[in-house]
Amino acid sequence: MNLASIKNKEENLPEITWSLVESCSLLEKIQHLGHCPLPSYNEIITILDDLFEIIYPGFGRRNNLHLGNIRYFIGDILDRTYDTLSVQIARSFCQSRHASGSPCSQAECEIPLRSEYERIGQERALAFLSKLPALRKILETDVHAAYAGDPACRSYAEVVFCYPGLKAITIYRIAHELHLLGVPLIPRMMTEWAHRCTGIDIHPGATIGSHFFIDHGTGVVIGETCEIGEWVKLYQGVTLGALSFPTDETGQLVRGKKRHPTIEDHVVIYANATVLGGETVIGQNAIIGSSVWITQSVAPNSTVMMEKPNLRIR
Amino acid sequence: MNLASIKNKEENLPEITWSLVESCSLLEKIQHLGHCPLPSYNEIITILDDLFEIIYPGFGRRNNLHLGNIRYFIGDILDRTYDTLSVQIARSFCQSRHASGSPCSQAECEIPLRSEYERIGQERALAFLSKLPALRKILETDVHAAYAGDPACRSYAEVVFCYPGLKAITIYRIAHELHLLGVPLIPRMMTEWAHRCTGIDIHPGATIGSHFFIDHGTGVVIGETCEIGEWVKLYQGVTLGALSFPTDETGQLVRGKKRHPTIEDHVVIYANATVLGGETVIGQNAIIGSSVWITQSVAPNSTVMMEKPNLRIR
Amino acid sequence: MNLASIKNKEENLPEITWSLVESCSLLEKIQHLGHCPLPSYNEIITILDDLFEIIYPGFGRRNNLHLGNIRYFIGDILDRTYDTLSVQIARSFCQSRHASGSPCSQAECEIPLRSEYERIGQERALAFLSKLPALRKILETDVHAAYAGDPACRSYAEVVFCYPGLKAITIYRIAHELHLLGVPLIPRMMTEWAHRCTGIDIHPGATIGSHFFIDHGTGVVIGETCEIGEWVKLYQGVTLGALSFPTDETGQLVRGKKRHPTIEDHVVIYANATVLGGETVIGQNAIIGSSVWITQSVAPNSTVMMEKPNLRIR
Amino acid sequence: MNLASIKNKEENLPEITWSLVESCSLLEKIQHLGHCPLPSYNEIITILDDLFEIIYPGFGRRNNLHLGNIRYFIGDILDRTYDTLSVQIARSFCQSRHASGSPCSQAECEIPLRSEYERIGQERALAFLSKLPALRKILETDVHAAYAGDPACRSYAEVVFCYPGLKAITIYRIAHELHLLGVPLIPRMMTEWAHRCTGIDIHPGATIGSHFFIDHGTGVVIGETCEIGEWVKLYQGVTLGALSFPTDETGQLVRGKKRHPTIEDHVVIYANATVLGGETVIGQNAIIGSSVWITQSVAPNSTVMMEKPNLRIR
Amino acid sequence: MNLASIKNKEENLPEITWSLVESCSLLEKIQHLGHCPLPSYNEIITILDDLFEIIYPGFGRRNNLHLGNIRYFIGDILDRTYDTLSVQIARSFCQSRHASGSPCSQAECEIPLRSEYERIGQERALAFLSKLPALRKILETDVHAAYAGDPACRSYAEVVFCYPGLKAITIYRIAHELHLLGVPLIPRMMTEWAHRCTGIDIHPGATIGSHFFIDHGTGVVIGETCEIGEWVKLYQGVTLGALSFPTDETGQLVRGKKRHPTIEDHVVIYANATVLGGETVIGQNAIIGSSVWITQSVAPNSTVMMEKPNLRIR
Amino acid sequence: MNLASIKNKEENLPEITWSLVESCSLLEKIQHLGHCPLPSYNEIITILDDLFEIIYPGFGRRNNLHLGNIRYFIGDILDRTYDTLSVQIARSFCQSRHASGSPCSQAECEIPLRSEYERIGQERALAFLSKLPALRKILETDVHAAYAGDPACRSYAEVVFCYPGLKAITIYRIAHELHLLGVPLIPRMMTEWAHRCTGIDIHPGATIGSHFFIDHGTGVVIGETCEIGEWVKLYQGVTLGALSFPTDETGQLVRGKKRHPTIEDHVVIYANATVLGGETVIGQNAIIGSSVWITQSVAPNSTVMMEKPNLRIR
Repeated sequence: MNLASIKNKEENLPEITWSLVESCSLLEKIQHLGHCPLPSYNEIITILDDLFEIIYPGFGRRNNLHLGNIRYFIGDILDRTYDTLSVQIARSFCQSRHASGSPCSQAECEIPLRSEYERIGQERALAFLSKLPALRKILETDVHAAYAGDPACRSYAEVVFCYPGLKAITIYRIAHELHLLGVPLIPRMMTEWAHRCTGIDIHPGATIGSHFFIDHGTGVVIGETCEIGEWVKLYQGVTLGALSFPTDETGQLVRGKKRHPTIEDHVVIYANATVLGGETVIGQNAIIGSSVWITQSVAPNSTVMMEKPNLRIR
Repeated sequence: MNLASIKNKEENLPEITWSLVESCSLLEKIQHLGHCPLPSYNEIITILDDLFEIIYPGFGRRNNLHLGNIRYFIGDILDRTYDTLSVQIARSFCQSRHASGSPCSQAECEIPLRSEYERIGQERALAFLSKLPALRKILETDVHAAYAGDPACRSYAEVVFCYPGLKAITIYRIAHELHLLGVPLIPRMMTEWAHRCTGIDIHPGATIGSHFFIDHGTGVVIGETCEIGEWVKLYQGVTLGALSFPTDETGQLVRGKKRHPTIEDHVVIYANATVLGGETVIGQNAIIGSSVWITQSVAPNSTVMMEKPNLRIR
Repeated sequence: MNLASIKNKEENLPEITWSLVESCSLLEKIQHLGHCPLPSYNEIITILDDLFEIIYPGFGRRNNLHLGNIRYFIGDILDRTYDTLSVQIARSFCQSRHASGSPCSQAECEIPLRSEYERIGQERALAFLSKLPALRKILETDVHAAYAGDPACRSYAEVVFCYPGLKAITIYRIAHELHLLGVPLIPRMMTEWAHRCTGIDIHPGATIGSHFFIDHGTGVVIGETCEIGEWVKLYQGVTLGALSFPTDETGQLVRGKKRHPTIEDHVVIYANATVLGGETVIGQNAIIGSSVWITQSVAPNSTVMMEKPNLRIR
Repeated sequence: MNLASIKNKEENLPEITWSLVESCSLLEKIQHLGHCPLPSYNEIITILDDLFEIIYPGFGRRNNLHLGNIRYFIGDILDRTYDTLSVQIARSFCQSRHASGSPCSQAECEIPLRSEYERIGQERALAFLSKLPALRKILETDVHAAYAGDPACRSYAEVVFCYPGLKAITIYRIAHELHLLGVPLIPRMMTEWAHRCTGIDIHPGATIGSHFFIDHGTGVVIGETCEIGEWVKLYQGVTLGALSFPTDETGQLVRGKKRHPTIEDHVVIYANATVLGGETVIGQNAIIGSSVWITQSVAPNSTVMMEKPNLRIR
Repeated sequence: MNLASIKNKEENLPEITWSLVESCSLLEKIQHLGHCPLPSYNEIITILDDLFEIIYPGFGRRNNLHLGNIRYFIGDILDRTYDTLSVQIARSFCQSRHASGSPCSQAECEIPLRSEYERIGQERALAFLSKLPALRKILETDVHAAYAGDPACRSYAEVVFCYPGLKAITIYRIAHELHLLGVPLIPRMMTEWAHRCTGIDIHPGATIGSHFFIDHGTGVVIGETCEIGEWVKLYQGVTLGALSFPTDETGQLVRGKKRHPTIEDHVVIYANATVLGGETVIGQNAIIGSSVWITQSVAPNSTVMMEKPNLRIR
Repeated sequence: MNLASIKNKEENLPEITWSLVESCSLLEKIQHLGHCPLPSYNEIITILDDLFEIIYPGFGRRNNLHLGNIRYFIGDILDRTYDTLSVQIARSFCQSRHASGSPCSQAECEIPLRSEYERIGQERALAFLSKLPALRKILETDVHAAYAGDPACRSYAEVVFCYPGLKAITIYRIAHELHLLGVPLIPRMMTEWAHRCTGIDIHPGATIGSHFFIDHGTGVVIGETCEIGEWVKLYQGVTLGALSFPTDETGQLVRGKKRHPTIEDHVVIYANATVLGGETVIGQNAIIGSSVWITQSVAPNSTVMMEKPNLRIR
């Protein structure tokens, strides 16, 4: 339709509506019709916010917490989160039958199946919540690593309040636990939320040790099959990515294979460095300089930097 | 004022107010005074949210959509969006007279002119909405390309929910249609919103074909005069930028000239690669490796990678 | 706990609660217990939003401003901001005693001390607000530099509305003034908010001259001890960072030393370039090309670009 | 506890909590524990608001409705209301098993029962919505009666916007349909909401004919077993109540018997008049004067007024 | 439709939608279709809330007001209220052409007419705001009268915060000024809002002198043509109403004639008393006892009480 | 100013602002200027909402409460309410020094005084919260009395959800405890909120026994010095008021004296009955009929009704 063919709202809008409805019969990949709702992004974000209240008490919405009242505060949020997280997990399992986006048939949605998803949701929610005390312990090591690793940092409170790296790692660690419990979709929704807030994109399938610190962080990408040791430090723009994507005999991508590098303990990788490949191992204590591009393993204790930049200076 | 000169709130605040008001008589570039309101960022975001409800039904606020009720849902949002978008477009045309920021004179705001902007707003809003069915079709190709192109992706729903690249492309495609209709300011407000949400900055003036996929995406910049073919895939940190900015004889920048590269069909550009220049053409099926820096054309079917990184390893 | 050990909500949730409460006795770094509340992130964001209303009147929530009513609008927001900012500053000074995160003892919170923090909060808030007229003047130079420096830019309004660089610089300039007044934590909360919104991470301790322009901006990092002159232009992904972190004899990082480069007037640094080191000086009018990596000083008026990229082309 | 026995927050609050929890084991009438949620008052109010949008289109949240777009608007609200009302009705049927307030046992809440309530909820919601066209017709007679009956009324729009009587009658007519469908609790929640907004308390069990008008309305009470004809007009403070409450042999109130009066067509009852008793019939065209107190039937066409008030005048 | 005829949501909801849309072609009195929006109830309530902030500064949303900052606070609210009130008044004048509820024809809504309503809206809004200083003065007499007249009252602050009578009178006085300026509909919307909040129903057409006090207030009705002097005190349930409604030769109600009583200075009327009739005058200093019913004038300085209640005591 | 004198917004609004500010120097009774904020009505309402969650768990915002999690829920709300209520009580004591509305002088607001009010606020808040378990017990008797006393009532849940009488009594009992603790202003704010929601106006100073039931309730007024026994039942419009207001020798009202009636156990008072006077006692088991007006004591076990209404019937 060009401007000339536009008549008026009363005539055109019903035509456009009709045309859009018609497209809903055809474009199954970009719609989700039917009675089984998808997980809700807003609910997932609310759950993350509530988990932050528990993990970092006193840094969020509620003041005046102390050892006398904190059990009520934590117990109440835990209980509430159990309810909401159970529902979202049940939805994610239900959705995972429908990768194609086609509406579920009436039979699939019958009560016995819904009841089964509900049970799964509750079981996994409870299993996840039981990991929270251990999560707090490892996150404290991350806070410590940030304070110890940045000379501009003045206090632990500054780390918790102001370091996007900590936010991304916290959400990653939450999402990773759900990933280990086999929960579909929700771990990715969580890390994508972290990505939106921080510019740091950590796949929930990655494995990351304690005392992990990402400074500044914008543009960091950590792939699904990365393995990262303890006391590792990354700067902004670091990519831990895949070198190539093998396809099977039918030309389809092979999913699930290790495609991303291994980073051993005490490695530092400076800004905008790129490390690629599932076979690539960065050995203990290695230092990878800023903007370096690496597709092969680096021996422990070595330092890799740009020697003499190939520059034209006028 | 140093700390010593501070007396108290009662004395100082009126002075500061006075000084700020005075600065409003002088600093025309950073204020918009007068009776013609600017487009509202909040309204623009609401319009984008509503368009997502129509384009990806079932993925947003509303559950339980099916072929029996979806026409009401779509029809109602379309109608509402027509009203709000008309108003915003009218404001953007009105604003475009005032690039200098100076308040419009009383005469300029008289009824006949306002009436004319109103008519233009309605006409362009309707023309834009009529493009939505075609937009859904091309966006489905983008969803398909993401699923086909990322081995970590498990379902189409994951693409719609969790891929910032799709969000950025969706908003770009919306903004591009408004750009083609000559609407000022609003297309840029939209893509800047996408930039804020995703770290991906696509100028609404760029031209992009179907099956476009951006993975991770943080730091991607696609300039105003880029031309991108079909089945192109970009990774995080890719810049498709300008090499230099020609100025005219008065030293002013020449605006509107092609300054950004052309990317042909089936090209892949890996993370943090930089392609610059309006004459630069990346030929069909070419692969541009990670962190590569290119200012000249690349032949079709070629692969460009860093040969041996110039590294110092200790 | 594995799935087998999960019994049911009624039994497990109290155990988890107990375990989390217990961890609160141990993990002091990641909690803030006690009666002295931390600064509130939501309040800080509200204050920034209100300051934008004053600095760029007419671009925010309020329409129909003109020279006749603007003094009421500005005066009212100033007065309100004085109240809220005073409280937040007082909290930040109180918090700065507690870098370890341990709850403050009863004695520390007694009235005389609180009264003193309150007085400090009011004094600094007033001193900060008195800088606003000067801030508007320098920010207008930044708006001018953006319009003059980007051929895709159509109007000053587009700069104020759509340029994340301007948002980041505005918040930096606000935060820098508070930093100069010795206010703890809040300047970093502010610039981290800007970082979240724009992907641009400017430390509030940096020193930056007038007519500063950052285009696109995602991934820009400007370190704490940078010094930047006038008419400097940066593109996305530019890092102005530290080369190494000296430690003292005990192995602790030395905090406060100049670690980041100096950028003189009229320098342009293109996308993804990296400039490192406290001794590094980029001289007047120098141009640093895209993706260049620099750890040594560059003479005035020189241009540094990648000569011939070391590429393998198949 | 008197003021002397108060020690401090840390010691007393846990005691109070304990004492309140203990009381929850005892006071079953004033709590609703267990996994079957009660209907939500906020949801019920949202449903009423949405029904007002359908019944009086253009008077509520949405402007710019016309015959071309109204079907989308109505269809979308209907569909949404079906979903939310079904859930609330299912909850109300579930609750009605638990008049005592005791928590439902696990067995009662099993899936088959929940599924049955869900089916009932959907069936009754649909049956209710099918009454809406007829409801609109009778409500238009009420609007007409208000305009015709009040010399201070200037337009039909004033009736819809400003007459609390119309609001109360609209909600009564909605609630009455649900009452006829056997829905528990929700009809009373609805009329109580009307009572709160208007001071007019109409029991959903009452039967009321067309062209019903209540002016001012504060304090009007219309009992459960009232029968009211057409073209009846009431003023503020009118009570149509019970004269006495018969009890059965065990001293329990007899519930369900006709206890409230019958008002025939074209009757007018002025302010603060009281009409009591299930046998009392006010005949056609009768006029009952202000403040009159009646416990016996009044013949058709008669006028009942205070003859000579029994006053002492000094 | 009975329960038996209900099939399922997919079949029935479109039928119901169709039936409702059809009813919109017929029932003109209870809908407002077309492009000229009605005044918005939410906007009117916002305006009233803002006027309370100005009239009773310090009692509302804003703390810390003092003589140094209050001019900014008041000036800013005044300016904002001018804008919003102008729009609402323009809408009310536009609506007043459409008492029948029929959609306005396209021609009626053309720009010149809209422009004229806009001008009227601005003119009346300004005229109204200029009455605010005088309104504050008379409202202070009402606050004084409440404090002086209720032995349970402890402070003026209690009057402003807790006396629904003052809220009703404040809104009445605002609405009365708009009524005097000929503004349609909005004055009634305002007093109906007061009625909803307080149970006190004062028609904006009534005339009321200074030092007016209503205690408790629920059920008070003051008719359109009442005239009330100074220092009058009313209790809950008092009706100042009409005795009969004269009709013209065609049977239509005569609108506008004086139908409600005159209450002279220093009269007290106790709870639930009823005074009816346009000829009825309650003379100066008269006291009307509780529950008394009066349809004739009462001489100055007299007391009217129930002599001996006609009671049956068993 | 008449319409003729209106010039334009730019000229008139500053004049009006000036005039309003000037009136703030004069009209002290209707403003609260200065740095000591008044109690916040919104906070008080939030506190009441939270107390309802504790008193009637499961009927409010939170579902899925059971004996396993309710201690966290209650403990957390108690703790939060302690904080907010302490602040409000402190403000109310501070305000009570300023009955005249004049701004407090700087000296009065100094830290030692504020600290003292803070201490009082915390002490009274704690004392109040310790009454909650007893409040729940007596409120259960009120729920029981409503169910037992209304043949239209179907369940205890209906009482808690739908009986405005219960809402008014609950808030009265909360406010009465604060009144007994000497807290100024807040008890009246609370009962006035109940009045607004229900039309029932109970002064917090009244004394009321267990098993109290008010049906319908609109227009009920219970004065400050009423004494009401157990198992008393009131209907809508009942006034328990004062007969006259004695003044002292200076003509000032005598405050605090018993002015309102005493109602003994098991009394029923029907709709719109009026009982006046501090000496008036309604004896045990008495029944007061509808619309009766009483100023003298009634013997136990007697029934008072209108014998033969003095009516004119045509």
